[in-house]
Amino acid sequence: MTLTREDFIALDDQDVLAPFADEFHIPDGLIYFDGNSLGMMPKAAMARAKEVIEQEWGTDLIKSWNKAGWFNLVEKLGDKMATLIGANKGEVIYADSTGLNVYKLVAAALEIRPERKVIVMEGSNFPTDNYMVQGLIKQLGRGHEIRFAEDGEILDAITDDVAVVCITHVHYKTGHLHDMKKITAKTQEVGALSVWDLCHSAGALAVDLNGSNVDFAVGCTYKYLNGGPGSQSFMFVAKRNQGKAVQPLTGWWGHAAPFGFERDYRPREDIRQFSTGTEPVVSLAMSEVGLDIFLRADMNEIRKKSLKLCDLFIQLIEERLGGYGFDIVTPKEHDRRGSQVSFSSENGFAIMQALIAADVVGDFRAPDIMRFGFTPLYVSYVNVWDAVDRLKNIMDQGSWDKPEFKTQGSVT
Amino acid sequence: MTLTREDFIALDDQDVLAPFADEFHIPDGLIYFDGNSLGMMPKAAMARAKEVIEQEWGTDLIKSWNKAGWFNLVEKLGDKMATLIGANKGEVIYADSTGLNVYKLVAAALEIRPERKVIVMEGSNFPTDNYMVQGLIKQLGRGHEIRFAEDGEILDAITDDVAVVCITHVHYKTGHLHDMKKITAKTQEVGALSVWDLCHSAGALAVDLNGSNVDFAVGCTYKYLNGGPGSQSFMFVAKRNQGKAVQPLTGWWGHAAPFGFERDYRPREDIRQFSTGTEPVVSLAMSEVGLDIFLRADMNEIRKKSLKLCDLFIQLIEERLGGYGFDIVTPKEHDRRGSQVSFSSENGFAIMQALIAADVVGDFRAPDIMRFGFTPLYVSYVNVWDAVDRLKNIMDQGSWDKPEFKTQGSVT
Repeated sequence: MTLTREDFIALDDQDVLAPFADEFHIPDGLIYFDGNSLGMMPKAAMARAKEVIEQEWGTDLIKSWNKAGWFNLVEKLGDKMATLIGANKGEVIYADSTGLNVYKLVAAALEIRPERKVIVMEGSNFPTDNYMVQGLIKQLGRGHEIRFAEDGEILDAITDDVAVVCITHVHYKTGHLHDMKKITAKTQEVGALSVWDLCHSAGALAVDLNGSNVDFAVGCTYKYLNGGPGSQSFMFVAKRNQGKAVQPLTGWWGHAAPFGFERDYRPREDIRQFSTGTEPVVSLAMSEVGLDIFLRADMNEIRKKSLKLCDLFIQLIEERLGGYGFDIVTPKEHDRRGSQVSFSSENGFAIMQALIAADVVGDFRAPDIMRFGFTPLYVSYVNVWDAVDRLKNIMDQGSWDKPEFKTQGSVT
Repeated sequence: MTLTREDFIALDDQDVLAPFADEFHIPDGLIYFDGNSLGMMPKAAMARAKEVIEQEWGTDLIKSWNKAGWFNLVEKLGDKMATLIGANKGEVIYADSTGLNVYKLVAAALEIRPERKVIVMEGSNFPTDNYMVQGLIKQLGRGHEIRFAEDGEILDAITDDVAVVCITHVHYKTGHLHDMKKITAKTQEVGALSVWDLCHSAGALAVDLNGSNVDFAVGCTYKYLNGGPGSQSFMFVAKRNQGKAVQPLTGWWGHAAPFGFERDYRPREDIRQFSTGTEPVVSLAMSEVGLDIFLRADMNEIRKKSLKLCDLFIQLIEERLGGYGFDIVTPKEHDRRGSQVSFSSENGFAIMQALIAADVVGDFRAPDIMRFGFTPLYVSYVNVWDAVDRLKNIMDQGSWDKPEFKTQGSVT
């Protein structure tokens, strides 16, 4: 039986997560399938920012490092994040950006396995992880190499000369999901260490780091977790790996006695050693608002709705837009995909621009990928119907084929 | 003739910088001599934050990377900063934290001088610079060493085996000011490269990087420049050094084609190579407000007032508190000091806590330093009188000698 808009309204009526949409500022008429790039603004974010700026900075000034807990915020937020990704307290800390944290974690892992020279990475991954590791091994100059493997080739690439396997859990472009447990098990079977990048999985699906015996992980807070533009990244270091290696970006925030102002670096032996220096506090503090919303939601319900939104989106595109050359690149199997759906399309760039002009925001990734992210806390079922409907209009009328839709940039 | 409070009121009446105080939120009754640690909040900061959060993030969402110029903000702010520190456009960029940027700059400088192994640093400097370079050379494992020298020993330490001289322009604890021109000249005479840390000089006095032929520099925006707590650091790379070395924290923001999503890193050949990854945007954007205020002020007037505030503070402490064991550690000569005055005092910690309780905020640095920073845009002459008056009361009455003033932490 063919689906109708009413079916989607009915699904929204039954949706246990529907009330969460009220916690986000959703611009009138906007259908936003880009929360995998920049999450929407929680309504409470502004009030938190105002408190940090006017009260903590403006009025309490320097006292806020202690009184407002600025100095320990990186650990406090880390402990909250831990509950979302299957980690324990004291295993997660916020700091810097994803790239810098990949650098720290891979450097630490290589120090634990000094005799091995191979790092396994996915070549088609969002490239900053690769770039950072390329920078690291060039700098080390000790003959390390990256063994690039694509989806399906990774297990075979993990041989007993491998030091580190550094893979992104969900692929930024295709949305394919790796089997964390299986890859980590193979990694450890050959005596290597695992570094997982959770940028497209934390907040998108249930992540269980300790359940998979992961060694290190890194993630992003401004995508699915709605922390605000560019908000700090987080790192996970399993307790068993803490104190074993010193990550090399040894700033004063990771010193054993940061207020002793000693001349020489002495590392903390816990997760804080992975912190480097003073963090942009307003962005950091504000990111707690998005995180707190997640802590009140049921991650299993989020995953259930995410899969259903994606399934329906795929079904509608196939049913209603069959002849327009949208080829799905995201795996259809539930255990093989994250919370996004990507299609390749010859005119994908212009079509996406036309769709954005029609207030359906996805994004485009070169050379030909149209990418749609589904964030169950603020995306509704009827959004899916309406988005496909608007896309169908654009295709039926050929209205994407205009010069103004063909020239623009894009940002992750 | 002994000074009176009326003399200070008269100085305020003549002060050409006095109107700038209106641009800052100054809590009632507070005398704030800690702008060298965390600058005060410009009144316009909140409006800018609101715009970034509610409009750019909340409403425009992902479009803001282009529309609001988020991606290029690091360069835009760098160009503004350039005018304040004697640099040219395209020589300054905002990124990350001071420590991370010291790491990048020293790593790049060492790559330009691969045959040399010595880095000259001031051992008593705020230690994060030392820590970062210690982390770097340990990681490189190529026999580099830090030659620590104190004030007065630095020129002699610069011999022809030196690769890099990395000195902080104004010392965080004593406030002593190094002769940038002389040290840089000696550095280059022996064929080494200079990396200057401007954390306590940018915004405190006229810095002329190109006038001193400096190679690299780094600085802080949340102290004298009132950018907000932990706001991003900036880096200077002289045009002649750009494209010569690749700093090793090679994230996608420094890639030649960041939106090409290529597998392998290709460095930009300009200042942007020193950028690593996505920046916390709210903190970054808000920091522009404090910077813009400086761009409207006359740095020579700021320096003139700063010196006078410090001179008067020293004079009053000596005249009115002579017997209380406050020994000045900041040089009295104008060309030898920054914009702070530090005294050593046996009971400095408790006295500073008592002073803070009396609404005069300075800070304490172990083991015995009471530190007072003077920020001419919002500190008045009568503040100096009143601060010393309150300190005199505390000392005359012995009211610092209480348990509640003896147990607390401190943060830079």
